[in-house]
Amino acid sequence: MTSPQSIDDIRRLCSNLPEADADAAKAAAARQAVLTKPPGSLGRLEELAIQLAGWQGREIPKLDKVEVLIFAGAHGITARGVSAFPDAVNAQMVANFEAGGAAINQLSRTAGASLKVFSLRLDTPTQDFTQAPAMSEEEFVEAVTAGFDAIGSDTDLITIGEMGIGNTTTAATIAAALFGGDGASWVGRGTGVDDEGLRRKADTVDAALALHKDAMIDAVEALRRVGGRELAGMFGAVLAARLRRIPVIIDGFVATAAAAVLAKQSGGGLAHAIAGHVSAEAQHRRLLDHLGLKPLLDMGMRLGEGTGACLAINILRGAVACHAGMATFAEAGVSDK
Amino acid sequence: MTSPQSIDDIRRLCSNLPEADADAAKAAAARQAVLTKPPGSLGRLEELAIQLAGWQGREIPKLDKVEVLIFAGAHGITARGVSAFPDAVNAQMVANFEAGGAAINQLSRTAGASLKVFSLRLDTPTQDFTQAPAMSEEEFVEAVTAGFDAIGSDTDLITIGEMGIGNTTTAATIAAALFGGDGASWVGRGTGVDDEGLRRKADTVDAALALHKDAMIDAVEALRRVGGRELAGMFGAVLAARLRRIPVIIDGFVATAAAAVLAKQSGGGLAHAIAGHVSAEAQHRRLLDHLGLKPLLDMGMRLGEGTGACLAINILRGAVACHAGMATFAEAGVSDK
Repeated sequence: MTSPQSIDDIRRLCSNLPEADADAAKAAAARQAVLTKPPGSLGRLEELAIQLAGWQGREIPKLDKVEVLIFAGAHGITARGVSAFPDAVNAQMVANFEAGGAAINQLSRTAGASLKVFSLRLDTPTQDFTQAPAMSEEEFVEAVTAGFDAIGSDTDLITIGEMGIGNTTTAATIAAALFGGDGASWVGRGTGVDDEGLRRKADTVDAALALHKDAMIDAVEALRRVGGRELAGMFGAVLAARLRRIPVIIDGFVATAAAAVLAKQSGGGLAHAIAGHVSAEAQHRRLLDHLGLKPLLDMGMRLGEGTGACLAINILRGAVACHAGMATFAEAGVSDK
Repeated sequence: MTSPQSIDDIRRLCSNLPEADADAAKAAAARQAVLTKPPGSLGRLEELAIQLAGWQGREIPKLDKVEVLIFAGAHGITARGVSAFPDAVNAQMVANFEAGGAAINQLSRTAGASLKVFSLRLDTPTQDFTQAPAMSEEEFVEAVTAGFDAIGSDTDLITIGEMGIGNTTTAATIAAALFGGDGASWVGRGTGVDDEGLRRKADTVDAALALHKDAMIDAVEALRRVGGRELAGMFGAVLAARLRRIPVIIDGFVATAAAAVLAKQSGGGLAHAIAGHVSAEAQHRRLLDHLGLKPLLDMGMRLGEGTGACLAINILRGAVACHAGMATFAEAGVSDK
């Protein structure tokens, strides 16, 4: 699949998305109906198996190769005091990912998934988007392409996540740009800012909206102007997954904001996506509601790194295991209702 | 540990329950505070790791040996038309468990847990408890003991679940006996009864309450009079787990009703328990609320067999993996807030 060379290439890709395989989904639903359980009694596990079947184009989906993708980026807006942690933590945490010491390392191992970390120019933060577009078109296409090309061959499922000091403010700005509302209505405490920090976050969002409001002609342009490299990377991965009909599990507030760009750019663009969890970040549930996504987990998590998405992988493994391995009423000689 | 020989033995065991190891829980909490993440950002995963540490009595809990226990029983009240499925399904599903064809077989494999099935006199249903006590004292002690002795040596965690046509009516009767309210307020559709069936379920509960109300002198006696063998077995397993300080994951409405007996018989009796999920059975959430248990998952499941509890095992594995494997801020050279 050819990587996009320009922002217009990205737009073209968004405007021509494939749908799920309806026959495979139908076959999977028929199979669910004859397995040894009261119809519907596995609840969302049944829906997940059918959704995966549709996107993978096979009655019995598989999860042999699952990739956990993390994108890291640095944000110019951190100069405005929007985070409780210093910028230096970006590279330190990427080193921690590489050394195997972060939460996502443990969770991806527990989920039987491989972890890939994409460090996107941590030494070159995006522009402070209250003053200028976060990225030039060239920078934006580069970041999107990093995500677009991130998925390996024969991958059955991906999860997306991120690392980026300051990026809950970036995500709040994207959310406001896509769905309306002011800064105060979208910001939350992120890694743990105080009331002053929260006010600075809201002011940053409002300043960005004021500067860019007439120039954000579509969702993709909004992502370039008020996004960040790791959000662009996640967006690219979600787009490529859709084009290849690979299901994707979305993580928390920041990952959902990135994925939302595809939903706004192209109606139904997230049909291949599953919300892994709802995080403790204040407006994540509202953002999921805008997208019509119902989260699988609600664990009060707010770490990022793709941890909530990764924790949901084993739920999908359970769904697929039941779908693939259960006996039918006829096979087991169990009396039907 | 000596198995109970009488109903009074069971009462004595309930009245002398050990507590968690406060030092181990404190050490685990201190460890969580220095791992490379904003404090509290793993939400319930942090709480779970600390809870497991306390009950296992070690700063870093382990989940090397996890046992999924299923108890099956037959109910005299099925003659009253309270289920959508015939009694024959009990033995048929036990055979399905043994052949590896049921949902719980797939989920226990996915969770890395061993499955043990206890078939409790399926050829001898309990008495119709609208007419007489469900079990004699001897029968009751036998069923409790089956659960009490069910847990293997060196087990780190158990889950409990059940199979028993008619047993959501039994569970509703237990719930009403323990927490008040009439039949209509506690029954649900179980495997899928119609409105008539739902009314028969409520009537059955009310008839049982009317017959036994003055004789149910405590929760244990209520379980003997209006319970079932698989509920008694699950109660025995939860009791033995507590006495051995082994954490337990509770499943749906029926399993929760069985566990509730320990909570009512002995204040704080379920401190070692985790609600694996809230099921789609109508009153499960209300029952959990009575017990102060917050479910981990909400998947719309209503299959029983311990499937919801089993699905939660991998959440605990994630919690323990983070707790055990993450680097500290100092180890990773990451800047603290």
